[in-house]
This record gives sequence, structure tokens and C-alpha cells, in this order.
Amino acid sequence: MTNTIPPVDAATEIENRKADHLRVCLEEDVQFRDVTSGFEYYRFTHCCLPELDRSDINIQTTFLGKNLGAPLLISSMTGGTELARLVNTRLATVAQHYRLAMGIGSQRIALEMPHLASTFAVRHLAPDILLFANLGAVQLNYGCGLVECLQLVDMLAADALILHLNPLQECVQSHGDTNFRGLLPKIAELCEKLPVPVVVKEVGNGISAAMAQKLIDVGVTAIDVAGAGGTSWAKVESERAKDNKQRRLGQTFADWGLPTAECITEIRAVAPTIPLIASGGLRNGLDVAKAIALGADLAGLARPFLEAAVNSETAVDELVEVLIAELETVLFCTDNVTLQELKNSGVLQRHVTVPAAAS
Amino acid sequence: MTNTIPPVDAATEIENRKADHLRVCLEEDVQFRDVTSGFEYYRFTHCCLPELDRSDINIQTTFLGKNLGAPLLISSMTGGTELARLVNTRLATVAQHYRLAMGIGSQRIALEMPHLASTFAVRHLAPDILLFANLGAVQLNYGCGLVECLQLVDMLAADALILHLNPLQECVQSHGDTNFRGLLPKIAELCEKLPVPVVVKEVGNGISAAMAQKLIDVGVTAIDVAGAGGTSWAKVESERAKDNKQRRLGQTFADWGLPTAECITEIRAVAPTIPLIASGGLRNGLDVAKAIALGADLAGLARPFLEAAVNSETAVDELVEVLIAELETVLFCTDNVTLQELKNSGVLQRHVTVPAAAS
Amino acid sequence: MTNTIPPVDAATEIENRKADHLRVCLEEDVQFRDVTSGFEYYRFTHCCLPELDRSDINIQTTFLGKNLGAPLLISSMTGGTELARLVNTRLATVAQHYRLAMGIGSQRIALEMPHLASTFAVRHLAPDILLFANLGAVQLNYGCGLVECLQLVDMLAADALILHLNPLQECVQSHGDTNFRGLLPKIAELCEKLPVPVVVKEVGNGISAAMAQKLIDVGVTAIDVAGAGGTSWAKVESERAKDNKQRRLGQTFADWGLPTAECITEIRAVAPTIPLIASGGLRNGLDVAKAIALGADLAGLARPFLEAAVNSETAVDELVEVLIAELETVLFCTDNVTLQELKNSGVLQRHVTVPAAAS
Amino acid sequence: MTNTIPPVDAATEIENRKADHLRVCLEEDVQFRDVTSGFEYYRFTHCCLPELDRSDINIQTTFLGKNLGAPLLISSMTGGTELARLVNTRLATVAQHYRLAMGIGSQRIALEMPHLASTFAVRHLAPDILLFANLGAVQLNYGCGLVECLQLVDMLAADALILHLNPLQECVQSHGDTNFRGLLPKIAELCEKLPVPVVVKEVGNGISAAMAQKLIDVGVTAIDVAGAGGTSWAKVESERAKDNKQRRLGQTFADWGLPTAECITEIRAVAPTIPLIASGGLRNGLDVAKAIALGADLAGLARPFLEAAVNSETAVDELVEVLIAELETVLFCTDNVTLQELKNSGVLQRHVTVPAAAS
Ligand SMILES: Cc1cc2nc3c(=O)[nH]c(=O)nc-3n(C[C@H](O)[C@H](O)[C@H](O)COP(=O)(O)O)c2cc1C
Ligand SMILES: Cc1cc2nc3c(=O)[nH]c(=O)nc-3n(C[C@H](O)[C@H](O)[C@H](O)COP(=O)(O)O)c2cc1C
Ligand SMILES: Cc1cc2nc3c(=O)[nH]c(=O)nc-3n(C[C@H](O)[C@H](O)[C@H](O)COP(=O)(O)O)c2cc1C
Ligand SMILES: Cc1cc2nc3c(=O)[nH]c(=O)nc-3n(C[C@H](O)[C@H](O)[C@H](O)COP(=O)(O)O)c2cc1C
Repeated sequence: MTNTIPPVDAATEIENRKADHLRVCLEEDVQFRDVTSGFEYYRFTHCCLPELDRSDINIQTTFLGKNLGAPLLISSMTGGTELARLVNTRLATVAQHYRLAMGIGSQRIALEMPHLASTFAVRHLAPDILLFANLGAVQLNYGCGLVECLQLVDMLAADALILHLNPLQECVQSHGDTNFRGLLPKIAELCEKLPVPVVVKEVGNGISAAMAQKLIDVGVTAIDVAGAGGTSWAKVESERAKDNKQRRLGQTFADWGLPTAECITEIRAVAPTIPLIASGGLRNGLDVAKAIALGADLAGLARPFLEAAVNSETAVDELVEVLIAELETVLFCTDNVTLQELKNSGVLQRHVTVPAAAS
Repeated sequence: MTNTIPPVDAATEIENRKADHLRVCLEEDVQFRDVTSGFEYYRFTHCCLPELDRSDINIQTTFLGKNLGAPLLISSMTGGTELARLVNTRLATVAQHYRLAMGIGSQRIALEMPHLASTFAVRHLAPDILLFANLGAVQLNYGCGLVECLQLVDMLAADALILHLNPLQECVQSHGDTNFRGLLPKIAELCEKLPVPVVVKEVGNGISAAMAQKLIDVGVTAIDVAGAGGTSWAKVESERAKDNKQRRLGQTFADWGLPTAECITEIRAVAPTIPLIASGGLRNGLDVAKAIALGADLAGLARPFLEAAVNSETAVDELVEVLIAELETVLFCTDNVTLQELKNSGVLQRHVTVPAAAS
Repeated sequence: MTNTIPPVDAATEIENRKADHLRVCLEEDVQFRDVTSGFEYYRFTHCCLPELDRSDINIQTTFLGKNLGAPLLISSMTGGTELARLVNTRLATVAQHYRLAMGIGSQRIALEMPHLASTFAVRHLAPDILLFANLGAVQLNYGCGLVECLQLVDMLAADALILHLNPLQECVQSHGDTNFRGLLPKIAELCEKLPVPVVVKEVGNGISAAMAQKLIDVGVTAIDVAGAGGTSWAKVESERAKDNKQRRLGQTFADWGLPTAECITEIRAVAPTIPLIASGGLRNGLDVAKAIALGADLAGLARPFLEAAVNSETAVDELVEVLIAELETVLFCTDNVTLQELKNSGVLQRHVTVPAAAS
Repeated sequence: MTNTIPPVDAATEIENRKADHLRVCLEEDVQFRDVTSGFEYYRFTHCCLPELDRSDINIQTTFLGKNLGAPLLISSMTGGTELARLVNTRLATVAQHYRLAMGIGSQRIALEMPHLASTFAVRHLAPDILLFANLGAVQLNYGCGLVECLQLVDMLAADALILHLNPLQECVQSHGDTNFRGLLPKIAELCEKLPVPVVVKEVGNGISAAMAQKLIDVGVTAIDVAGAGGTSWAKVESERAKDNKQRRLGQTFADWGLPTAECITEIRAVAPTIPLIASGGLRNGLDVAKAIALGADLAGLARPFLEAAVNSETAVDELVEVLIAELETVLFCTDNVTLQELKNSGVLQRHVTVPAAAS
């Protein structure tokens, strides 16, 4: 850590921000306005006579070398507050039960205030899951380096480190960290030196194929598109704005970004084998199935898991149950036994005409 | 019948389910949400000077060798309860009057509880109509074989047996019968050995051209596409759900399936001569006319007939009257005397632009 | 007149129908539901620097050899009742003032009840206008022949006879005249023997290019497409229905027909010189200008004139004033001095994309 | 000045009109109805990893030889009344602070009533900005010539003269000046003889590529498309109508014109280097960025500045602040440092499919 680490007051500001984010995401309308994830343009071809027993269906998979009970990721969200601790606890417990992948929120606050580390550290609750550490990539320009990243990974006994890219979010909040210069070589160095894989994600505005290629070229192991159509961070920051300017700025960019489905198809076209996560606006197992049929290996959801976790552990469990049931229903009604079969089956069709209900 | 036949309690459960289905279909919104039958994309070319007398128009037809007064099928719906008996009685009486085709609901319950057979058996009321027995094809994996199918046909003095395919419905209900493995050869055997023709239908999610071809290849005599856009069985099962999971599962798949109009055009492209029934979302004689112009031989309606039949026999009669008047009006205003002429006339056009009213 | 003329009771029924039509058209929503005239798909290319003085603009034209002050037709509507007399009087007075073309409603009733002729006869009020007699073409199968048509023309001192084609309207009313067999040769005969030109129109469902060609081939002098998108006669008849069947029949066919703009472009493609009237759903001078730019020679409006005429003569006058001002504004803002220039200017563009406001 | 200058009464009428315009624009819905500026069809490709520091971004530019702090024009609006003086004062003060370009309303009234000149003259408040004089081009046919234009420029110490073209506005108001004959040669003469550059703009109905070419050919230095999609002058004039005719005329033409985005792309295709201003319906810095990415050099806003200025100088300041922040956010999130880079980057994509939210 260098002297660019913010002083205690700033840290408290981060703590407030974390609390704010949870509150706003739970209470306000923070969904993209008109732009959608793009999955609704796709429709599966129904198979009325699947030649299988539903109980044969197998949605297990592996990602970054770990076995998963389902191709589901609980996306990076929180830490640093007591509510965050509760949320992370409930999510981790259920993740362990179903062997899901899981991320936690940006750990920067825990670098600055080490006593908060325990609000992130869920490994003891989920010894077997694929667990991701998390840091804003831009922090590599604000005092975080290899040493700090190692700390973050250790704090969690994480299997990998997620670096999130959030230029829009930094722009629409006041005093955001907006020096993004020279990050790519720093990411390259991390990829080389960190003992665990580095995953890069957005936070809801998407990653283009061109950028995915650049990231792969510098050694990133996996990509999570975190595209447009779900939680809009511009809207979140608009809701917590302290002045008109920030409020309007957030509204203007409420719909900014690349829809999740587009990111997946475009990245898959240039990088057929990179481990790829679809997230941003996935809301049920039908979206999950579409993401996978389009080429994703894992499907991440953030806000739906937050809402369930704030409610109860049972709610999280039920959410996973239904996501799995929905995904299996798609497999069954398209006559596919495994996720791999689904990917190769060609049963997902793009339909461009607007449904007539629009008229 | 083998020992896989469910015990009495289960049978009672089926009885309740039958009653539930009627109630839900009558009281709740069980129509597809955004997906439509697809008929609204088509428009007839109006002929302002038909060279005919409306009284010359003749909508009689034959199907599976039987003469019909109109190309209308009262789709398979019910049986097993007293309300079902009433419904079937009214429908059969009117069907006889107009010489329509008619199906009844799945007869499995009557195999298990023979005293309920009389709620299905309407032949005495409709000696001359084309009458279809009905069974879920998946039951061929749950204890029903040739012997039972013969029983079903005899119970009704049916002209043919309809096997319905409903993988989605089985998935979205709790404890559905979801072992669909190996059904095709069993259907093949039935086609070969049963003394009456075998018809295969869906229940509202549609049959693809590829599957239609497979079914024809194993000997099926006719196909009823029962496509998407009308009654959504996912929604029906969602409405009668006992837990959140089933409720949400049904909602997620509310719009699943292949629109009826698409099924008709796609199946006709690969199978120009197979006797073909259009059903799923047809709501008036204009839809009936479009289905026929697209290549169907018969047009089936379920829920509209249910609503009328629960009301009164007169209501059923009026419904048929208006369907016929609507169909004849189309023939008149497109200058066609017979259904065959309508099919060959090229007066139905697909219009892809969204009506300007949408703007 | 032959003995097929209906007896007095039936005539009274016609009288009631005439009154009903006015009432329903004035009080109920009788506009097409989703189908529009199609003019909204077209947009003029604005000219910000017209090289002309607005006072140079000249919208005079000639039709069937008569000079018109503007390319406007008050479409055929009414007669036979006292209200009709008032309406016709006001319309004729204004038509004379601006030298517009004008039609009156079907005169059959006046054949049956000669004392009603005066409710149609407006020539004394409008000595110089282009005035059209009117009869349903189907009446040529119900007792009207050359003799009767001559009577109709004489009754009005009409310049031409309009025969209207209305197969849908006849179908959706109870006891409609639906024997349309063999009308074409009878129209041919009229064209040959009648001393005035014969014009054929629809009543709101449009005339196809193929039919226009047939009509031209038998000698019709001019065509009025009277297309879909304005007053829906199916809806009118539905509103005055006496039973459920007729009510629903009308609703089912509320949107039946060929949009007016399509009729114009398609007929012009096959018949570049036939005198052509656009009507059906034109509601302002911008629609009038589009109709003319698409190839029509005259533009007819019915319901808007009815509403104005029921109000006052001044209201009719104001309507004509504004229609002319709107038409001249289009000419001015597209830099055209005459209607002929407008037709040749290529300033009307079809834009297929749905306005973004739809999103 | 010649004797065609209107007498005092008429001048008072102009004064009232000026006041009316402000009131109507502030209080009524004067936005285009369905037609939009067209910018919503375009979407930027998000760059999740810009290789720059936001503080490096530089949105300065030059236009007609003057340096501007941002590519923003406060469009020509007002003058002649006390409220106008206040508005112009506030706008000019902020324009000076950020070095924006600024226009004022048509100065004809100040020719007629010289004591009103001071309500326009803002140069003392904004010594360094690019300042535009303003006159309706049609006035060249109503008594204004080179001498008067010089007076207008001098009155303001303007850097250039804007001639606005408004044939529709003149048509939809009563007693509009509608003799547009022979203006082009007069504009040519002005371009030749006036010591400052001549800019031509519309007032919200757009300039076509063909007309832009003509204007360039006669020597116009710059063009402001002032296209459709923002303030609709037809609606403004409709709101202040004194009779039904004018009211309806304005409504009929509420959506007339060429959308701003179309004007920009089409003019740029034929005139790659002409200094080009986008205005008409731009409402935030995202629109500004799109206009520039499509090829405009400057982006003008009228009504948003009016609303702010009537409120307070601080409101105008805040509006400029947020416009700049929005524009810089686009540059940052598309990885561009300068406006020139943005233009060449190809990061703006047209997306033709209707957003799925429409369904
Ligand atoms: C409350 C909340 C906090 C988040 N915090 C982080 C974070 O710290 N790091 C990160 O990479 N993404 C964070 N995200 C973004 C999510 O991981 C995800 O990319 C985004 O919300 C889109 O997914 P969704 O539409 O399913 O919510 C957060 C999301 C939410 C809802
Ligand atoms: C109350 C009800 C019960 C049904 N039961 C059966 C059944 O037992 N067997 C069957 O093949 N289809 C059954 N169906 C499905 C219909 O036959 C038909 O395929 C479907 O409802 C779509 O038609 P619709 O949109 O006209 O209702 C039933 C439909 C309804 C409304
Ligand atoms: C009240 C009323 C009565 C009409 N009666 C006749 C008629 O007798 N003969 C006829 O040819 N058309 C008749 N029409 C049809 C009109 O001439 C016209 O074709 C149709 O209404 C479409 O025009 P619109 O949309 O401007 O109303 C009538 C229309 C109305 C509104
Ligand atoms: C109140 C008001 C007065 C205007 N007066 C003039 C004017 O005198 N001269 C001119 O060239 N344009 C005038 N305009 C037009 C604007 O300059 C601009 O072209 C048009 O309003 C479209 O921009 P907007 O959508 O941002 O309002 C005026 C606009 C407004 C709102």
C-alpha cells in the first residue's frame, strides 16, 4: 500500500457508499430504462417429444477447474457493513449447498479498514465453491498493486481475482476515480504474477469483442461481460446524488452500454474458447439457458440474489431451486441432456420481428 | 394395465386436477402473455366484387374420411367430473347438429376409475360426428399400452385416437410425468396395431416441422399443431400452483412455444398432404379462415368452446353460428366458394411492417 | 322497376337504416381499429427555401371534364330523411362556393319512395359542381336496371353515376343483399348505355389493382378506392346490431380491407391514367396532399364532412378552408405551385422504420 | 429601409408576438408529437477500459475562426421585450464564462423600433464569444437589404449573421410573410457584400442535403440544420392561434420536417467540410455527442436554455455544467480525448431494431 490510500474520513465515505448502494438497489427502480439484456430477441424451438427422462438431465459443469452443481454465479456485490456480512453469509451458505460460483463486493474498503475483512470472508461457510475476490481495476492507479491483490485473494482464500471495470460509474459519481490511463499493462502484470487466475468484468455496461480480445491478449483467464439491461449503475448513482448535476448525469446515462446478449455473441465470435460469464439483466433460468445457448459458460445474477439474501437464507435457496428448475425445463423441452448439448443444438433462434402485441 | 397405475388417492388427485383446470381456464387470465398465434401478421386481400352469391358458399369438408359441416374441431378438453359431463354433453349435441369434429379430455382417469367413463362417452348424442379419444402420449411410459388405448377408443366409439404431447406442462406441474424416453417407437406400434387412426397433438406449445416429419415417418395419420398463442398451460399450472417455485416456473414459461401460424406454414412446407389441424389461439372465424388459407384442413378451438359450454347449449350453438358466418364472410369477400378454392387463391398476404398505430 | 322492389315495410326499414347510419357515425367510434389509411408511412421532404410566393399556388383541377376549385370530393353519404336533407343542403351550398365535387347517399330509397327524392336533389343549390348520383352495384341484381339508373341521374341532374361495391357491409348486416353474381357484365352494359360516366367506388374496404383493371376493362370511367383506415362499415353495422352474432361479426371484420394509400399506389402502377379518387380515412389536407402525391386526382372525405354538416354550414365552410390551407401549406413547403408539379416532384418518401417514440 | 417596413401598429403586433412566443414555449407542450430528432436510433459502443485520464479530455474547439470552450451554441431565440432582455443577459453572461457561441432572436423588431435594440445587444457582457445576429431570410423580400443587415450586425458587434428560413412558420401564422420568391440571389449578394460570414438556419423543420448544397453554392459560410424533433413552431403557432383554422393548421403540421440527425448525416455526405451546426431537439450532452459523432461541428439548443434563463443565471450555469459533464462522459466512455477523435472513432452505431421494450 502506498500513501495514495485515502485517510479514515474517506474510508468512512466508502462505508456509507456501500450501505447506500444496498439501500438504493433494494428500494429504488435501478433497472435500465429502455435498453434490455437482448435475450428477449431469442426464442427456443420447442421440442414436443423430447427423447429423454427429465431425471437424466445434468446441469453440472466446471469453470476454472472447479466443479459446479449448476452454471450459476452469484455476482460480486457487497461487504464492509453488517448488512453486507449477513448477505454474504446467506449467499455463501446456499452457494456451498448447490456448489455455485460466488463473488463478493469490492474489497478495497477492507484494505483500508482491515477489521472489515470478516464481512467478506465467507470461505469457512463455503469450502468447496469457486470463490472470487474483487477489486476495481482502476485502483491499480490509486495505490493498489500486486501486494494488495494478494492480500485480497488471501483474505477470502479465493480461487481467482475479479477486476471490475466501471468507467461510467466513476464518471457519474462525484469524485469518482477517473484516471484509467495505463491499466492494461498493470492488468498484464497481475495476470503474470498473481498465483490465481484473473477475471475481468464490467458492472453493467458490457465488454465489447475488441476489448475482450485485448484483455485475452494480456493474459486474462476469463471474462464476465456484465452487460446492459439489468442493474443500471448510472441510475443507482443518480438515486444517491447529492446535487442536480449528478442526478441528471445518471439519468442521461441510464441506458448506456452494450446489451448482455450482444456481448456474448460478439465475444464468442472472436474468442471461441475463453471461459465466458454472462451477466447483466439475467432474471430467470430461461435467460440463463439463453446465455448458455449463445455461448456463455456461466451465468451470473446480482440484484435478484441481493433481494433474496436480504429476505432470508430460505429465499436464496428457493431462488436457486427455481433457477435450476427453469434451466432444466429448457433442457427438457429442447431435448438436451447437458449444457454442452444445449450449446451445440441450434435450438435458439433470433426473431427480429416485433411481436404483434406491440400494435 | 400394469401395476404402475396410480392408487386411488392419486386418482382422486387427478380428479381434482381436472376440476382445477376447468376452474382456472374459466376464471383466470391463462392466455399467452406477449406471444400470439401469429395470424395477425396475415391479411386477406379484399375483393370488392365477388362474382358469387353468398348462398353458393360451401364450407363442408371431409377429414379422416368423415364428412363435416364445417372445418371446425372442438378441441380435446375435459371429462371425469360432473361439470365435465355437462360440458361434453352440450358440446356433443351442437357438434352433432353442425357435423363438427370433437375431442374429449384425457381419458386416463377413466382407466383408473371406470365409473367416470360416462362423463366422456358422448357418442350416443353425436352418432355422426368425427369423434376423438384422447390420452397423453407420455402415459405409454406409465402403464398404458395397446390394450388401454383400445379401451379408450371403445369407451367413446371414437373414430380416432389423439395422443397429446405436453412436455412443458408435465415440467411445470409438481410430480409431472416427465419420462419421455422411447415414446416414438411406442407411438409407431400403436399406429400399426390400433384399428383406428392415430392423431398427435400438442396442448399449446406447437409442433415443429422436423417433429411432424418424424411423427409422419412412424405412421401418424394426422397432426394437430396446438401451437402457442392461445391457452398457455404454463400459466394454467402457475395459477393452480401450491408453492412459489411452481408459480414462478409457470410464469417464466408463459410464452414458450411455436406460434400456431408458424407451425402450419412450416409443416405444410415439408408435408404437403398430411391431414393437418390448426389449433392454439384461434378465436374467431377470421382466424379459422387464415389457418385454412395457410394450409390447415381443420381448425380447432378449445377455451372459447369451454366458455360457451359452461354457459349453455345455446351459447355453444351461437358460437358455431358466428364462426361459420365469419368464415363464410371471408370466403365471400375474397371471392371463393369452397375451402379448397380459398387454399389455392393466394388471397392471404403476410405483412411484416408493424401497424402504424404502434407509433 | 320490377317486382323485386321491396314492399313498403321494407322501405321503411331502409329509412330507419339511413337514420341509424347517421346516428351511429356521429355518436359511436366507427373508425378502423388498428389498420390505418397508410398515409402515415409517408413523409414529405421539407423545402426550407421554396422559390415561390404562396399566393402563386394554384390548386384548381379538372375531373371528368369539370373545373374544380380544389381537388376535393365530399363523399357519398346520405339522403332519405329530414336530417339527410339538411346535411345535403349544407354540403351542396359550400361545395358550390368552392366548386368541389360532391356525392349523395344511395338513392335506392328514392326509387321506392319517390317523395324522398327531394332529400337528395341538391342541384339547384350547386349548379356548377361535379355532382354524383349513387347506387349500390348489387342492386343491379335486385331489380335496378338501366331505366332506374337513368332515373337516379335525372333526379339529381348528376354529372355521373357512382356505383358502390360493399360486399362486406352486406355480409355483416342482417338480411343484406349478398347475391353479387354476374355484376360485371351489368356494369359493362351501364357504362355503354348510360349517357353519363360511371364511377365505381367501395365504401371503406378498398379496391385492389386487379379489380381496378377489370373495372376499367368493362368501361368504368373513374375509380374511387374508398379504402380501409377511415370509417369502418363493419363497426357501423356492429353498433346497430340487433343480436350478438351481428355485433360480433362486425367487430371481427372491423379492420378488414386494403388501406387507402396501398390502393392508390397499386392501382396507379397498373393504370397510370384512369381518373382516380382517394378516399377512406383522409382526415386533413396533409392526407389529401399525400394522396395526390401518390397519384390520386381527387381526394374524398365522408365522415369529417358529415360531422361538420350536422353542426352548421359555417362548420362545413371552415372545414373546406382549413383543408385548402393545409394542402397549400404542403405545396408551399415542398416548393410546388400546382398539383401536377406535386405529383411529379418526388417529394413524398416512404419511411418504413417505426418512429422511435414507439420504444 | 424602404416603405415596406410595417407601421407602428404592426410593430406592436411583433412585440406581442415575441412575448407570446416566450410564454407559449415556456408553458405549453410545443415539442414535436411523434417525430423525434432521430438521435435515439444511434448508440455509442461502450469502452469499458478507456486508456485515458478523464482530466485529459479536451472539448475545446474553434468555429468560424473563434475559440470555443465547448462545442455548444445557445440558439437564436429572443429580444424586443423586457423578459427577453433578462434572458439574453443571463445567457450571454454564462456564454462568456464558458466561451460558448450564442445567437439572439430575430432583430427585425429593432429595425422598426430602434429603442428595443438594447434588448438584443449583449456584446458588452460577452466580449469574447462567437455572437450571431439574426434575421428571417424572407425579410429580404420585405424591405430589408444589405444596409439593414449591416445595422443588425453592428447593433450586436456580431461575428456573423444568421438568416433563418421558416416557410412553415410563416404559413401557419395568420398574415405570415409568405413571398419567398427570389431569395437565393439575395442571399448570394449578402454573402458577397457583408463583411461578416452568413450562416443559414431553419427554425425546427430542417435543411435537406440538396438545399444545403444550393446554399453553399451561393456562398453561405455555415449551416445550422435546426431540424425536426425539438420545438415545433407549428405547435407554437397553434397554441397562440386566434381562430380554429390556425389552431388546426398548426396541429396538422406539428410533426412536419426533416429529423435533425438525418439532416446532419445527409448534409455531411454531400458537404464534408462545410462548418455545420446541429440543432433541433438536442436535450442533453449525449445528444450533443451524437451530433458531433455524426459530423456536426457545433451543437445548438434553444428551449432548454430558455427554460434555464427564465429561472436564473445559476440555472443556465448548471445546464452548461451538466452538458459539458455529459459530453465528457461520452468521450471518456468511448476512449476519446478530443472531439476530433470522437468524429473519427466510429464508436456511434445505428441500431435499426426497435427496442424490445416496445413489445
Ligand atoms: C448492490 C450491488 C453492488 C455491486 N457491487 C459490485 C462490486 O463491488 N464489484 C463488482 O464487480 N460488481 C458489483 N456489482 C455489479 C454486479 O456484479 C453486476 O455486474 C451488475 O449488477 C449486473 O447484474 P444484475 O443485472 O444481475 O444486477 C454490484 C451490484 C449490485 C446490485
Ligand atoms: C380446460 C382445458 C382442458 C384441456 N385438456 C386437454 C386434454 O385433456 N387433452 C388434450 O389433448 N388437450 C387438452 N387441452 C388443450 C386444448 O386441446 C388445446 O390444444 C389448447 O387449449 C389450445 O387451444 P385454445 O387456445 O383454443 O384453448 C385442454 C384445454 C383446455 C382449455
Ligand atoms: C354516414 C355515411 C353514409 C354513407 N353512405 C354511403 C352511401 O350511401 N353510398 C356510398 O357509396 N358510400 C357511402 N358511405 C361511404 C363513404 O362514401 C366513404 O367511402 C367511407 O365512409 C370512407 O370515407 P371516410 O373514412 O372519409 O368516412 C357513407 C359514409 C358515411 C359516413
Ligand atoms: C422562444 C424561441 C424563439 C425563437 N426565435 C427564433 C428566432 O428569432 N430566430 C431563429 O433563427 N430561431 C428562433 N428560434 C428557433 C431556435 O433557434 C431553434 O432552431 C429551434 O427552437 C429548435 O431548437 P430546440 O429544439 O432546441 O428548441 C426560436 C426558438 C424558441 C424556443
